[in-house]
Amino acid sequence: MQNFFWHNPTAVIFGKDTVKELADHLKAANVKSVLLVYGGKGTFKSGAYTQVTEMLTKAGISFPEVNDVKPNPLIDKVREGIARVKAGGIDAILPVGGGSAFDTAKAIAAGSCYSGDVWDFFEGKAKITKALPIYGVLTASASSSEVNNIAVVSNPKSELKVSITSDVLYPKVSVIDPSFQFTLPVKQTVYGGVDIMAHILERVLDGDEGSELIDDQCYALLRTMIRVIPDLIDDPKNYDARADYAMAGMIAHSGFFSMGRIARGDFSSHKLGHSMSLLFGVAHGASLSVIMPAWSRYLYEDNPVPFARLGENVFDIYDGEDEDKALEAIETLEDFFRDINAPTTLRELGLKEDDIEKLAENACKVLPFGALKELNEEDVTEIYKLAY
Amino acid sequence: MQNFFWHNPTAVIFGKDTVKELADHLKAANVKSVLLVYGGKGTFKSGAYTQVTEMLTKAGISFPEVNDVKPNPLIDKVREGIARVKAGGIDAILPVGGGSAFDTAKAIAAGSCYSGDVWDFFEGKAKITKALPIYGVLTASASSSEVNNIAVVSNPKSELKVSITSDVLYPKVSVIDPSFQFTLPVKQTVYGGVDIMAHILERVLDGDEGSELIDDQCYALLRTMIRVIPDLIDDPKNYDARADYAMAGMIAHSGFFSMGRIARGDFSSHKLGHSMSLLFGVAHGASLSVIMPAWSRYLYEDNPVPFARLGENVFDIYDGEDEDKALEAIETLEDFFRDINAPTTLRELGLKEDDIEKLAENACKVLPFGALKELNEEDVTEIYKLAY
Repeated sequence: MQNFFWHNPTAVIFGKDTVKELADHLKAANVKSVLLVYGGKGTFKSGAYTQVTEMLTKAGISFPEVNDVKPNPLIDKVREGIARVKAGGIDAILPVGGGSAFDTAKAIAAGSCYSGDVWDFFEGKAKITKALPIYGVLTASASSSEVNNIAVVSNPKSELKVSITSDVLYPKVSVIDPSFQFTLPVKQTVYGGVDIMAHILERVLDGDEGSELIDDQCYALLRTMIRVIPDLIDDPKNYDARADYAMAGMIAHSGFFSMGRIARGDFSSHKLGHSMSLLFGVAHGASLSVIMPAWSRYLYEDNPVPFARLGENVFDIYDGEDEDKALEAIETLEDFFRDINAPTTLRELGLKEDDIEKLAENACKVLPFGALKELNEEDVTEIYKLAY
Repeated sequence: MQNFFWHNPTAVIFGKDTVKELADHLKAANVKSVLLVYGGKGTFKSGAYTQVTEMLTKAGISFPEVNDVKPNPLIDKVREGIARVKAGGIDAILPVGGGSAFDTAKAIAAGSCYSGDVWDFFEGKAKITKALPIYGVLTASASSSEVNNIAVVSNPKSELKVSITSDVLYPKVSVIDPSFQFTLPVKQTVYGGVDIMAHILERVLDGDEGSELIDDQCYALLRTMIRVIPDLIDDPKNYDARADYAMAGMIAHSGFFSMGRIARGDFSSHKLGHSMSLLFGVAHGASLSVIMPAWSRYLYEDNPVPFARLGENVFDIYDGEDEDKALEAIETLEDFFRDINAPTTLRELGLKEDDIEKLAENACKVLPFGALKELNEEDVTEIYKLAY
């Protein structure tokens, strides 16, 4: 097991009707005004907008807004938020939504304390040292952004979808009320679920010996997701399934499962997926259900062990050599994605064979990446081809 | 799943040769002097004492000492530490040891900021609102005290072994170097392991529906312990097994596995065990390997479900009705305790039949407790009888 440092200071208020509990935390921190950051329709439909604004009004906290945050959020929206904060009078940022709202909020929180352009952070030209405090309300689980120190933002101009990480970006307090997710479109529940699974798969398949304890915890979480995603397709208002899904979503990419791993995960599939989102607007979860099986097929013959262990521990595959188990595990995962109507090929997403080159070119901009194998340009192209 | 609040602010430095990394944290907090709190022999034998004092000396931090902290630590030692702090010049408390050193340090940290006698906190006569910061170095895993906000202390005069809990008692930073545990006596590895398992068993057997996700995580942790305890009996210097054991010990009673549970665990076995430690000096882990099976046998017929689930998920027991599986699970657990040379009867501990009455009388002082069943005086006596 590798040495590690663990510190996750975010407080979580989890459960039904808990938004009102956020007021005490805001008051204790003497917050008088927050910048409300959210998307659109979904925030209203879930009831979150009403509950949050009522809570703030009752607490005497003003809440200027930045809204219309999109999935795969854009740097221009971040700049809009920063401009609003710099106009004055904002004590904290309050995202209401999923990972996009939280990621936008984090970038605004950091950019508001910086005199240059916020994209500098994403390009590594400046280091984040300070940020406004973040208090968030989650309405869609997937990214763990509600409890981690990461923000992923897209810049169409420079054709980059990249992340920033800083310990000042941990939300102070996040409210996770699983019942806000009752009204999510089925597709979003499925894609969010794939993303949660991918955060775990990126770790258990990274080739690091890590810790058997943490691997066992990872496998248990994958089995939970394989149980609850179909439950939620059948009944989107199944509270206990929503709660397990939301808790899994919170833990999966919180850093907890990186303990003891040298690589802290592989994350090639995430990088390859980012190019699909950036160039073709593919939903993040859909990019992962396409690319993870392709990445796996490309690498399992040279590295059968992690895939075989996945097969044994998640899919009860015990027959054959490691290589056989590995292939069966990949096929079973792919079958699961198909069963829940997640795409597994670029073709299904409407991409053409010619697009592979564009994808590869874009992904190669952020090479090197990968832990099970550090990928090169040829690998990247071959994986996209397999995904086609 | 029940609503919950989660916030664990402790930072963990985990791994080989990591004591030196604590210096930066102490310096950043402007700590000039710490009260070193430790037991005796073990602290020297593990190498921890040398590493810690070298680190402090190099960092220019002075370290007056309170030593000779015993297992099942005593309130008088806490008072000794408080007197030293009140004499002046101490910025923080630095336990080096296992749960006893950490618990003593926490009680000192709180008592040093209070004008009355520290036992008031344990009797509920005063509320902890302030404490000196705690920076600890763990040399024996078991209690999770290194990452939680709990301290358990014994008072022989009032015949009570009781706990305090306060959010100001979370250590700021804990160093967990599993290699310090290479030199633990086998017995302590076994008893610590039983304690870690008990922290999980208290939860999965508490009768709360909780969360299937968290239960699955709990079962995975139990399977890890059943693997690593025998590995460590065979080879006390097996680093990966020590690391999994230390990580399990850290997570088990950190609050993580209470997420979504109404009762946050049953803990009757802990209370019944405390009387054994207090009156007869029984090691904490030994009290648990005796009492948990007895408590289980007493309750499983009326509550077979949690025991049956334990059987399925940890011991692969799938045949028969829930009641059959439950009994087989309890027997298998007891067999495991016997296999690792943990006691399973009061008789083995040298107690006499007459002692049952004294134990019951003592335990009944802190009634009510228990979640699967809230125990009454008769229950308490019957469980001790079964344990005899």
